Amino acid sequence: MSAATSPARSGAIGVFDSGFGGLTVLQALRARLPAYDYLYLGDSARVPYGNRSHEVVYEFTREAVFDLFARGCPLVVIACNTASARALRRIQQEDLPRLAPDRRVLGVVRPSAEALAGLPPGAVPGVTAPALVTGTVAVVATQGTIASDSYRLELGKLAPRLTLVQQACPLWVPLVEAGETDGPGVQYYVRKYLAPLFAGGSPPSRVLLGCTHYPLLLSAIRAQVPAGVEVLAQGALVAERLQDWLRRHPEMEARLGQSGRYRVLTTDRPAWFEAFGERVLGEAFEASEVRLRALS
Amino acid sequence: MSAATSPARSGAIGVFDSGFGGLTVLQALRARLPAYDYLYLGDSARVPYGNRSHEVVYEFTREAVFDLFARGCPLVVIACNTASARALRRIQQEDLPRLAPDRRVLGVVRPSAEALAGLPPGAVPGVTAPALVTGTVAVVATQGTIASDSYRLELGKLAPRLTLVQQACPLWVPLVEAGETDGPGVQYYVRKYLAPLFAGGSPPSRVLLGCTHYPLLLSAIRAQVPAGVEVLAQGALVAERLQDWLRRHPEMEARLGQSGRYRVLTTDRPAWFEAFGERVLGEAFEASEVRLRALS
Repeated sequence: MSAATSPARSGAIGVFDSGFGGLTVLQALRARLPAYDYLYLGDSARVPYGNRSHEVVYEFTREAVFDLFARGCPLVVIACNTASARALRRIQQEDLPRLAPDRRVLGVVRPSAEALAGLPPGAVPGVTAPALVTGTVAVVATQGTIASDSYRLELGKLAPRLTLVQQACPLWVPLVEAGETDGPGVQYYVRKYLAPLFAGGSPPSRVLLGCTHYPLLLSAIRAQVPAGVEVLAQGALVAERLQDWLRRHPEMEARLGQSGRYRVLTTDRPAWFEAFGERVLGEAFEASEVRLRALS
Repeated sequence: MSAATSPARSGAIGVFDSGFGGLTVLQALRARLPAYDYLYLGDSARVPYGNRSHEVVYEFTREAVFDLFARGCPLVVIACNTASARALRRIQQEDLPRLAPDRRVLGVVRPSAEALAGLPPGAVPGVTAPALVTGTVAVVATQGTIASDSYRLELGKLAPRLTLVQQACPLWVPLVEAGETDGPGVQYYVRKYLAPLFAGGSPPSRVLLGCTHYPLLLSAIRAQVPAGVEVLAQGALVAERLQDWLRRHPEMEARLGQSGRYRVLTTDRPAWFEAFGERVLGEAFEASEVRLRALS
């Protein structure tokens, strides 16, 4: 029996987001790593997370991650920036050692910070990240992600000489969720949040879309960003860096199922989730409704 | 011992909303009925309810109502239109008889429908509501409220010859929650949702703001509504009709505490709730954070 057909190779990669926005990450993962199985969970009953407190985001995220564990995922990618910023470290440090020492949870903030600094995947501060990167970069994200200061903390380790400017965009997720991705209203609120970034003396050369919903506003965003400024969406960079992570963690890679299938779960409104999801994923799929349980 | 000082007179009127918007109702209740005690509960950890499913809104609302019961409220006003439309009837018919037969729960849809039809408080179809009202009226509300068709059902009983036009305004709550209550973006989305109502051959003579957040957009809304069209906010009309209801239910009125105090509870972000709430209530107050429990 070869390792490739071992029965241990059965776990899907869990992908969690507060809503359907993380499907932009699922799509990029399937494009780059099509062999694996994926189990997506969107917490549409409690979306959006962006304006909620640290504690509430931690509790909601923990419920979702352990639900994906219970469904057999050995590895969970938290595709939500707010949840990555506010819950990942605590889940990794407090919950995993005690409750699920053989599982792993990854977020989107660290790989995004690497890409924002122009560093290779898995860059090690002081070694492959030689602290020489300079200039100005920007992050646009939800209020929760900005308030957590997670991007500043990660960049401080990876590229301490880089200047970071940040902008909260509290209306962008509601706009996308209301089906508004272009037109005068969208243009107004895209300009309102982006203009201050480019008003100063040293404007950013790179802008990270630090929320999985934002790629759906990409054409309106590009129209407001000066020529020559790079706009980074997270799906592709997270997929690239997950591939690298799996190369460096063969013990986890060996546990992942490889039938190339995916399933989509949501805590509310599967039909609405399917309609929006189809736009993001580029194909029709069936979403199943599930309930999350409060953990003691 | 007089009835007025009886120890049985101790219960606060519970006021529930998905967020801080229902404070517009609390303010109107205190203005018209200042003697009573109020206990406000906002579910900011899971706001907004407007785009969530019937089942999820029912579950969240039921948890909140029974929390207010457990805190001693004999009477709860559901100030949230989505929750009134999607959960009130089921709570009244299934939960109260079994679990709390001595409590009462009232919503905002019935009193608002009465006011929209120009009928007196507590109008009885066919008796004090003689089915003679004609013309066109409009309701603007969240997607959940509109999808429930509750206003059409209530008006069908009260004033079957009245024509109702309805418009979902999915961005108005996020705008208010992002602190956007005026300016070009707000004007665009107020016009976008209101213009279709007045484009037809028989425009409405009266527009009900069927969401407790919407009074915060009142000046932008008035600017888009033709002269002579009446705009109804819910706070005042709910207070007027609660006063009438209490006159007709002396057994409940006798249980209500009369120290004129109020308390505000929220499931998330009390400081942020206080800042927004102060704008609505016109005075500073302290909000306490509470957790709601899933009911079996």
